[in-house]
Amino acid sequence: MSSLSAMRRAVCPGSFDPVTTGHLDIIGRSAGLFDEVVVATGVNVSKNRLFDPDERLAMLEEAVRPWDNVRVSGFSGLIVDFCREIGAIAIVKGLRGATDYEYELPMAQMNVHLTGIETVFLPGATGNAFVSSSLIKEVAGFGGDISAFVPDFVAERLRAKLAR
Amino acid sequence: MSSLSAMRRAVCPGSFDPVTTGHLDIIGRSAGLFDEVVVATGVNVSKNRLFDPDERLAMLEEAVRPWDNVRVSGFSGLIVDFCREIGAIAIVKGLRGATDYEYELPMAQMNVHLTGIETVFLPGATGNAFVSSSLIKEVAGFGGDISAFVPDFVAERLRAKLAR
Amino acid sequence: MSSLSAMRRAVCPGSFDPVTTGHLDIIGRSAGLFDEVVVATGVNVSKNRLFDPDERLAMLEEAVRPWDNVRVSGFSGLIVDFCREIGAIAIVKGLRGATDYEYELPMAQMNVHLTGIETVFLPGATGNAFVSSSLIKEVAGFGGDISAFVPDFVAERLRAKLAR
Amino acid sequence: MSSLSAMRRAVCPGSFDPVTTGHLDIIGRSAGLFDEVVVATGVNVSKNRLFDPDERLAMLEEAVRPWDNVRVSGFSGLIVDFCREIGAIAIVKGLRGATDYEYELPMAQMNVHLTGIETVFLPGATGNAFVSSSLIKEVAGFGGDISAFVPDFVAERLRAKLAR
Amino acid sequence: MSSLSAMRRAVCPGSFDPVTTGHLDIIGRSAGLFDEVVVATGVNVSKNRLFDPDERLAMLEEAVRPWDNVRVSGFSGLIVDFCREIGAIAIVKGLRGATDYEYELPMAQMNVHLTGIETVFLPGATGNAFVSSSLIKEVAGFGGDISAFVPDFVAERLRAKLAR
Amino acid sequence: MSSLSAMRRAVCPGSFDPVTTGHLDIIGRSAGLFDEVVVATGVNVSKNRLFDPDERLAMLEEAVRPWDNVRVSGFSGLIVDFCREIGAIAIVKGLRGATDYEYELPMAQMNVHLTGIETVFLPGATGNAFVSSSLIKEVAGFGGDISAFVPDFVAERLRAKLAR
Repeated sequence: MSSLSAMRRAVCPGSFDPVTTGHLDIIGRSAGLFDEVVVATGVNVSKNRLFDPDERLAMLEEAVRPWDNVRVSGFSGLIVDFCREIGAIAIVKGLRGATDYEYELPMAQMNVHLTGIETVFLPGATGNAFVSSSLIKEVAGFGGDISAFVPDFVAERLRAKLAR
Repeated sequence: MSSLSAMRRAVCPGSFDPVTTGHLDIIGRSAGLFDEVVVATGVNVSKNRLFDPDERLAMLEEAVRPWDNVRVSGFSGLIVDFCREIGAIAIVKGLRGATDYEYELPMAQMNVHLTGIETVFLPGATGNAFVSSSLIKEVAGFGGDISAFVPDFVAERLRAKLAR
Repeated sequence: MSSLSAMRRAVCPGSFDPVTTGHLDIIGRSAGLFDEVVVATGVNVSKNRLFDPDERLAMLEEAVRPWDNVRVSGFSGLIVDFCREIGAIAIVKGLRGATDYEYELPMAQMNVHLTGIETVFLPGATGNAFVSSSLIKEVAGFGGDISAFVPDFVAERLRAKLAR
Repeated sequence: MSSLSAMRRAVCPGSFDPVTTGHLDIIGRSAGLFDEVVVATGVNVSKNRLFDPDERLAMLEEAVRPWDNVRVSGFSGLIVDFCREIGAIAIVKGLRGATDYEYELPMAQMNVHLTGIETVFLPGATGNAFVSSSLIKEVAGFGGDISAFVPDFVAERLRAKLAR
Repeated sequence: MSSLSAMRRAVCPGSFDPVTTGHLDIIGRSAGLFDEVVVATGVNVSKNRLFDPDERLAMLEEAVRPWDNVRVSGFSGLIVDFCREIGAIAIVKGLRGATDYEYELPMAQMNVHLTGIETVFLPGATGNAFVSSSLIKEVAGFGGDISAFVPDFVAERLRAKLAR
Repeated sequence: MSSLSAMRRAVCPGSFDPVTTGHLDIIGRSAGLFDEVVVATGVNVSKNRLFDPDERLAMLEEAVRPWDNVRVSGFSGLIVDFCREIGAIAIVKGLRGATDYEYELPMAQMNVHLTGIETVFLPGATGNAFVSSSLIKEVAGFGGDISAFVPDFVAERLRAKLAR
């Protein structure tokens, strides 16, 4: 009964520094699997981020506009605490290769142990499955053309940021 | 809108020859993630099955009784065709290790290409993640004690079947 | 000196039962890396082949027509013996995932030990990297649409073969 | 106390069809780690064996002669039952790659669950880590030179067997 | 002969920052496989350690008290040099997944090359196989409950340390 | 036609800090596969390098002297831009294990997307496949004997450098 009426909310966490077409593929497919998807990016002070939290949130807002049931939020602390606060039942993670899976597994097992919140894995779409934000930044930093791997407005902000 | 009202149905496919506690862990967790879960076992004539389709379906029926929103069905042909018939949006697969993931990936990618039906991966619970039906049958066949890996009534039927 | 004038010939071995767009991607890229590429399919009597050697060779001939420097041949016995006969210096293998690599490694190491002939690995193109001949046959056997994964004329012969 | 005086016996199980230098590397290194090593080969009736149990045992006897604390035995049934019968505390397995590890893991976990008998993994020596009995038989079957991968007397028996 | 009378000593190395139930599982199982086990933690000055060497050694001392044949030691320099000093024949490493194995392999091969000292791999117990010290510290740092993954007295010191 | 007359040039990129026998194995085998091989080491200012670019280039020059068709060059920026400048058609990478392959794959896919330049993978020779420059430096830093893993003149410079 209750299982039929419940609103099923999932979280897509990440640093999204910046958001890529690979991320958006996972976000869009999650939006088809759950009633609501919250894209959550950590706002903890962190070394090694190119974009600050406000910039990352702004790019995400723009990027998820096509989906009615996707919204964006910052979070700090443990992702499972954030999930509990907003009533999410699952975390969705895109997988590149098998190594990725082994890397994500301990956190997934810790999270389900702490809170019962599941981590659900979706295989990356084959066309862009292997391109990460950090590789895009590295290539863009040397002037390489990364327009196939991020939305247009992200490519622009990346160029502007790196030109500074 | 529509995304909020839709009934979200998933399929847990397998040969379930016989159903294990590992399978039931994945089924139960799927039942928490979707509105309805259909456990589907292939009824194609197949070599190498210990239990025939009716026996496997009967054991599954008994095993999924604890969940209100789980039901059991046989299917023949492609699993994605079955998913479309019953209006399922996703296939759920439990993962043992990383090798498992690579084994499942081509079929998952073929399925999403053919029909848009997603395959969602859940990591196996650590306590019984690595025990497969075929290993259980091998061990039981030599008289080993497999009672920790299957429901009690399955252990009994396995013993009866192997005693013949 | 001699290294500059030598004709560099490579072999792409496989059962090609039938040839897929994934195979053709590897063949075409090999044709850009070596002076001549010989696509070699085993003609040993074998169980579990859908197409007989003549059919597989005929499909390959048609499929490799776009490349000037690619030709097709049957072979029996060890692939390295075939390589020596035709003066090839390398075997090219496409890789799906990491598991594939571990599967191919022992044969590659045996081959280089026996004859000095190298095995060179190319990552599969992301768009069709994970689709194998056997998965295509399985899906086609249940009436699934595999036209995205093989050349048109292969899809046709596959349908004709399976209709019998 | 007891831990200091106990005799520590390990089992190296396998089909050894035939024994390879890779097997002997693992056996010899096991002999340095435990007080006694029992090399155990299954004598169950089995399809797909080239050598029958007596032949495999005879080759093993000859091959392990260099080690004082290694002996050879056939076994049938579960390997852990054999271990308990002879008072072994561990099973030793050589590992080729990471995929091998995932393949062995479920049986190792089942075994420790059933009996407390541990499975200990040793990485294969790099020089011959990837060559398996089945690959050796395949290559020898086509007349390839496999003398680097098996003891001389095994190469001879393999040639004699395949000549029939 | 000598092989029967020799005292077989193994080393379980690690940073143990702090010791986890996963570590203790491997240590306890090693104690069943060897005559003596020395748990060795590096005391080199190191960045990124939460507990200093004295604290880590003290926690280890307390944690290994249940085993008669386990003792604790600091070491600096190469672990194989330490092994030679104390007459150990093997290093024992617990394995989480297959990726772990590939990470440990080069050091294992280097060590056996340098000194003949073997590295023996034990699969982590399934219940806590995937939880690392660094994940525990990360979760504890955000106030998560890590009491299931470390001994009670370690959980307490971790809380005290992080409260500062 | 053109494919027969073209000069086929490949690049072996790396930090070579310092060059190892594993690198030289890959370089030598690449020299047998292509008309010319350019060994390219990054000269970007970088943290964590033991040898500066001039030292690394000098060691490489000496190490590749045995091969007529191998030359050495520094590069900065993206490796694919360097490849285009010198007219190379492929990048050659040696592979240790399967994890290595997954690590290299995203960059390989990015590179072929950006420029059509292929990355070709060669399995490391089994004898030294797993030893990396960083492991050699770590072991040498503690006074371990690494003479089996680098050319003699490199071992000497490594000792001199670390003695400072």
